[in-house]
Amino acid sequence: MRLGIYGYGNLGRGVESAVLQNPDTELAGVFTRRSPEKVKTLTGVPVYHASEIGQFTDRIDVLILCGGSATDLPGMTPALAERFCVVDSFDTHANIPAHFARVDEAAKRGGKLALISAGWDPGMFSLNRLYASAILPEGKDYTFWGRGVSQGHSDAIRRIEGVRDARQYTVPVEAALEAVRSGANPELSVRQKHTRECYVVAEEGADLARIEREIKTMPNYFADYDTTVTFISEEEMRENHSKLNHGGFVIRTGVTGLGKQNRHVIEYSLKLDSNPEFTSGALVAFARAIDKMYRRGETGCRTVFDVAPADLSPLSGEELRAHLL
Amino acid sequence: MRLGIYGYGNLGRGVESAVLQNPDTELAGVFTRRSPEKVKTLTGVPVYHASEIGQFTDRIDVLILCGGSATDLPGMTPALAERFCVVDSFDTHANIPAHFARVDEAAKRGGKLALISAGWDPGMFSLNRLYASAILPEGKDYTFWGRGVSQGHSDAIRRIEGVRDARQYTVPVEAALEAVRSGANPELSVRQKHTRECYVVAEEGADLARIEREIKTMPNYFADYDTTVTFISEEEMRENHSKLNHGGFVIRTGVTGLGKQNRHVIEYSLKLDSNPEFTSGALVAFARAIDKMYRRGETGCRTVFDVAPADLSPLSGEELRAHLL
Repeated sequence: MRLGIYGYGNLGRGVESAVLQNPDTELAGVFTRRSPEKVKTLTGVPVYHASEIGQFTDRIDVLILCGGSATDLPGMTPALAERFCVVDSFDTHANIPAHFARVDEAAKRGGKLALISAGWDPGMFSLNRLYASAILPEGKDYTFWGRGVSQGHSDAIRRIEGVRDARQYTVPVEAALEAVRSGANPELSVRQKHTRECYVVAEEGADLARIEREIKTMPNYFADYDTTVTFISEEEMRENHSKLNHGGFVIRTGVTGLGKQNRHVIEYSLKLDSNPEFTSGALVAFARAIDKMYRRGETGCRTVFDVAPADLSPLSGEELRAHLL
Repeated sequence: MRLGIYGYGNLGRGVESAVLQNPDTELAGVFTRRSPEKVKTLTGVPVYHASEIGQFTDRIDVLILCGGSATDLPGMTPALAERFCVVDSFDTHANIPAHFARVDEAAKRGGKLALISAGWDPGMFSLNRLYASAILPEGKDYTFWGRGVSQGHSDAIRRIEGVRDARQYTVPVEAALEAVRSGANPELSVRQKHTRECYVVAEEGADLARIEREIKTMPNYFADYDTTVTFISEEEMRENHSKLNHGGFVIRTGVTGLGKQNRHVIEYSLKLDSNPEFTSGALVAFARAIDKMYRRGETGCRTVFDVAPADLSPLSGEELRAHLL
């Protein structure tokens, strides 16, 4: 399977190294909107300007779109889905239906197959919500994120005057997790589920009290949470806060039996040293599925919900039944 | 969707009560090899003799086979798959390929669709092994079972002379679980992963030391494990050991990155008050998927690996994308 990488940041580099771990895949090239000569790939894969992508329609089976959800993917995925089979990790939950409709239209027009929103949430967490609710229809879902770096919240802090750098960790509240696991079906407020830990490098002479106040009262991002702010040095930021780790928990509790007397807890959790590399692993697996489904004649847009798990694996049906079932 | 229940033990009763929790399903009847007049259903569903099943080909969309894997399903599933769309929970891992081949042949001959081995292991645990290995190809899988009742091990103890009743719990070793979660990729022996707790009601005057010795030295079942034997009264057995609870853990640890420097842990766990009722929930969800797939023209045998998750849900694609993705 010949893959292309479109966009070369953390996610693009993650896909590049994931290809080395998947012997049935190879890379046709990396495509960037920057000057190709200024981009050096990890493994020496050739770099092309994004405008050259049109020459690769016969040399790429699936193009993996590694742009951001805020400004890149809403235009990028529909634009490319007409000429390539594509996979993206679009993760703005509220806009998924609109994104799906645009990509579906483009892919059908071009007779191609696309998959949006691969990764872990949306992605593996979504799949676990779906499986669990199908098996335990009478129950309640809980999703917790963290402990991990939120890029959006880190960026929000960086926009405050006097802040040179910032890293924000989303942290699930252990007591809330335990209450959920107990099957007590608690109603949890935003504040009860997660806390927010902020590490901030301030400009010299900046008013630290004001920065802390501005963070803690910021609407949507921090005001509804118990937030702690710790000022650190640039060195400490580099040494202790450079990893893009993340993770979280999807838990469903439900009841069965004629008297609803039996309780069940389904829990799925991830502890990831590298959020973008795990997402890249998912992108490559779903690219494999899209390639197989396209060869069977499917076109249009799909999500992780529409993919039979066997299509994600390089193993045959016989091998899967003999060794993994 | 009109379901039939074939075989009416713990699993059949579980399906019967699961139907009440799934408003898009209804029951056409329960089929038993016993005398129908001697079987009383939980919800008043009519009971028929198994020999009458042939009259129901037009009145049942999916027949759920609730027999045991040791002696019932190997004959039952292929025999019925020619005339009905069927779902079973065949769980003898080593014999799955042969069972699959026989069911596939029968279903194709009759133009019907079948799914075998739904439940949690095989079933949800298998799915988690597959998803995790597709996303983290460089890693290692661990499956732990328990704490829960093993019917096979309980039966083995009951066959010992002087034993009136017995219940065996399989218990995962907490230290082994922790070692796996740490990402240390330990090589674990059978003894290091699970212990076995046996609760035994002995006949009056039986030689307890001999019974304990016979249990602990029983090959395959107990000899390779740290096994504890506790003699209890009949009342204690009834009061404290009547639940069919079970559960377990599927954990995959893997590495990513050019230097394989980033570790990831994927963990899926179940805590089930009722093993048969959870399995029944899975059977009904996969029956729904088989019904949809059959209406799209599919025939032959499938496993959980071949089912797109969206087909398990009563919700539409639009609803799933808007609310669960």
